[in-house]
Amino acid sequence: MKETLEKYASMINSRLDSLMDAYDKDNAKAQLVCAEAMRYSLKAGGKRIRPVLAMEFARMSCGDEKMALDCGCALEMIHTFSLIHDDLPCMDDDAMRRGQPSCHKAYGEAVALLAGDALENYAFEVISADEKLSFEQRVKLIKCLSRAVGVMGMIGGQIIDLQNVGKAFDGEKLLKMYSMKTGALIRCACEMGCICGGREDMISAAHRYANALGLAFQIVDDILDITADEKLLGKPCGSDAELDKSTYPAVFGMKAAREKSAELTNAALDEIKAMGGSEFLAGLTAYLLDRTF
Amino acid sequence: MKETLEKYASMINSRLDSLMDAYDKDNAKAQLVCAEAMRYSLKAGGKRIRPVLAMEFARMSCGDEKMALDCGCALEMIHTFSLIHDDLPCMDDDAMRRGQPSCHKAYGEAVALLAGDALENYAFEVISADEKLSFEQRVKLIKCLSRAVGVMGMIGGQIIDLQNVGKAFDGEKLLKMYSMKTGALIRCACEMGCICGGREDMISAAHRYANALGLAFQIVDDILDITADEKLLGKPCGSDAELDKSTYPAVFGMKAAREKSAELTNAALDEIKAMGGSEFLAGLTAYLLDRTF
Repeated sequence: MKETLEKYASMINSRLDSLMDAYDKDNAKAQLVCAEAMRYSLKAGGKRIRPVLAMEFARMSCGDEKMALDCGCALEMIHTFSLIHDDLPCMDDDAMRRGQPSCHKAYGEAVALLAGDALENYAFEVISADEKLSFEQRVKLIKCLSRAVGVMGMIGGQIIDLQNVGKAFDGEKLLKMYSMKTGALIRCACEMGCICGGREDMISAAHRYANALGLAFQIVDDILDITADEKLLGKPCGSDAELDKSTYPAVFGMKAAREKSAELTNAALDEIKAMGGSEFLAGLTAYLLDRTF
Repeated sequence: MKETLEKYASMINSRLDSLMDAYDKDNAKAQLVCAEAMRYSLKAGGKRIRPVLAMEFARMSCGDEKMALDCGCALEMIHTFSLIHDDLPCMDDDAMRRGQPSCHKAYGEAVALLAGDALENYAFEVISADEKLSFEQRVKLIKCLSRAVGVMGMIGGQIIDLQNVGKAFDGEKLLKMYSMKTGALIRCACEMGCICGGREDMISAAHRYANALGLAFQIVDDILDITADEKLLGKPCGSDAELDKSTYPAVFGMKAAREKSAELTNAALDEIKAMGGSEFLAGLTAYLLDRTF
């Protein structure tokens, strides 16, 4: 599993590099600052979960994970843009991200704002220019991604999260927020893999898998915010408690959180079996539950 | 001319309304705040120049301006998102826009940031869902728009503009910044009209027209920032001088600015003639030079 994950991650990292290289040609010094800030946040890494999911669903669909490589990069650009904007002082005001100063700490607020805007935009440009895919596939992918990002998806979840202070959320509202804020993009990643692989009949099963995985992933994040080693996590722990935010463990208790994430992981594993199985995906799913950062 | 402009603007305004209505269904109260902020800034109006250009080029291409109505709305969403983010305290810190408090003054910085993000995203969603157009047209339109918005276009121009303090710019750099910050989206609007109308052979001529119009438009903006009536302009005058920004009149003098904008307007009118003419476009072009706000 780890080997395949590293192979995927290295494909993604090198494709992100070459996509960003396009910006280094014919560019004024000023614009290079923006491209540099985009690259700084993109390169900081993270687990590349979304592109890995897109690529593995493409492989399961058509045997070639590379069909979803550029779409995976687009997903990572969207994810990174949301982190850059989330870290800004008017949002969560986080100084550290992925083990390094957050984008606005390194480049200033104005450049970070625009680098986020440019990453959001570049995601759509990359898909529109992906000539491996038919025009119809590209349109479907852009529709899928933009819906996942918008007011009904990730951004809607961020808006709901803004009101998540002073433990204002009950369980239902918390689950809705999670399903939008992190769930929508994970669902979209799996769906994009099916579209890239020409297997739209797999989308419903992919959604069921993604719903279970997405929520398990978020609950584990919540648990790690309480229990993890800050150095491994790459950002300060306890930030949820400090901001007095509702989290799964805060609302349901730590024991229920551990049980729920295990139960969801099992449900996700069952979906993989029902789809005909993927050893790598099963390994990845179990690993995401057991991770320590 | 005014009549046609009003007809176009009213088509655009009502389509923007119905595109935003989609967000009012099934939405939690929290998300509605975001949709409300998007609508607040979209509805504030402005001259709708970009969608009007897209629609008129579609009409010139295929006889039906409605072919570019949704693309026009997408252009207005991009323009509005850039204004919302430009007004934020970390950018130009403007409290007024289009005659009303700017988005972050009305809804707070976090909601304004996310409303801008959501408008940028919704623009691509709207084009991807425009079933009047073929998949190929939609892909070409999204490619065209995303290139105009990115680091080589509008956002690149905003980045260069960040360094425009203390009269640091010479004429060449100023013209480059204008060509990207406002020029790219105006060029894109005309090109999108040609694509919607199925006349890609018109794109080069459309670009030549748009280059002349875009720069003339920007120079007139600069002149109005010095000379206009604040009440008509809808935002405070003298903000460029206050921020000690280079502008066309500041670098080349007011007389040269007036001459250049007239010369560019004539060049744009010549391009319209060469394209076979459009009475409305000629009237609009002359009106944009002579406007007082």
